[in-house]
Amino acid sequence: MRVPTHIGIIPDGNRRWAVSNNLSKEKGYDHGVNPGLQLFKLCQRENIKEVTFYGYTVDNTKRPTIQKEAFIKACVESVMLLTKEDCEILVVGDTFSDTFPSQLLPFTKERKKFGKGGIKVNFLIHYGWSWDLNYKKDFCPIGKHVENNLKSREISRIDLIIRWGGRRRLSGFLPIQCVYADFYVVDNMWPDFKEQDFYDALKWYDKQDITLGG
Amino acid sequence: MRVPTHIGIIPDGNRRWAVSNNLSKEKGYDHGVNPGLQLFKLCQRENIKEVTFYGYTVDNTKRPTIQKEAFIKACVESVMLLTKEDCEILVVGDTFSDTFPSQLLPFTKERKKFGKGGIKVNFLIHYGWSWDLNYKKDFCPIGKHVENNLKSREISRIDLIIRWGGRRRLSGFLPIQCVYADFYVVDNMWPDFKEQDFYDALKWYDKQDITLGG
Repeated sequence: MRVPTHIGIIPDGNRRWAVSNNLSKEKGYDHGVNPGLQLFKLCQRENIKEVTFYGYTVDNTKRPTIQKEAFIKACVESVMLLTKEDCEILVVGDTFSDTFPSQLLPFTKERKKFGKGGIKVNFLIHYGWSWDLNYKKDFCPIGKHVENNLKSREISRIDLIIRWGGRRRLSGFLPIQCVYADFYVVDNMWPDFKEQDFYDALKWYDKQDITLGG
Repeated sequence: MRVPTHIGIIPDGNRRWAVSNNLSKEKGYDHGVNPGLQLFKLCQRENIKEVTFYGYTVDNTKRPTIQKEAFIKACVESVMLLTKEDCEILVVGDTFSDTFPSQLLPFTKERKKFGKGGIKVNFLIHYGWSWDLNYKKDFCPIGKHVENNLKSREISRIDLIIRWGGRRRLSGFLPIQCVYADFYVVDNMWPDFKEQDFYDALKWYDKQDITLGG
């Protein structure tokens, strides 16, 4: 089977899941933490080299405070859980924001190795596509390639995006790394993640003809 | 019905259509011209404000010469057909390339009005996502927003992308304008375009919940 090198994960549908389970919306995020760990372990098992989780965005922070606190907490827990595994973690996002979670600051300077290392895991935390593309203020990229000047430049090209929650859109997820990515949508909400979702996506990906525009 | 303001069209599958109709690959593009005109007329009828066709890319020009000549010819014909309609045409692409079709140069300077004008129609011709994003050489965008500095900045945000030919990827199609776009895939090859494909896409779009990340 042809396996993607780098998978992007859009874990959407936490609030809709909460509502359909008679919980208030913010309760959904908590139920999204464990699926992340499960998915990570499947990537490890299938020898995926890199996986990127869409944590939360600048846009998302416009939501009610109770939701904002809940998804930030869930993101921090998700990163912390992975520090007990064999992996190499990088967090990418706007650390200059007041609400950027301070516990995650150490992960933003450089990729940190845990256990035996191995699979690269990236988390987008307080990420914005526009923030990502607006070059560093002190750097004038005349004649340079945009790819090298992204704030997310340590994150490689994505082969396969898997989005839970049924929506067929990128919602600002790493626009440059995703230009050639294949896009697989799972109708289940993210807290209802099943191992089978992942394997269905890999099976579908295996059948795609990769051309990179050629 | 909630109708998209701006639709992006990825007319893929011309070569696969040709092969499945016992024609050599390059013969497919010719059969993709008329579907473009049909689709344009449907957009006009449904009061869509702007439509962008993915003509061909820098990557595509690596294909065999006979194919390259065929898709450039089909693109030129597609633009010329629309000059007989009521619309406002803009062509966006790398006019400095040797193979950029000279007949389309007049459409690249500014949007040109035909008949009574009205719907905006954009064609990406010799387009590249990387070309689009690599700022003008004589302009240093310190502290500026990337959106204002795109070479394709005259093309507005896209609400709905419709791709024919079954593939679920953007293939470098306007990465910035598509960050929030909903993505609808038609399994038919482009030369097999049917009016119903378009209306199915609109019906699907009407059911999507637009959040722009909020």
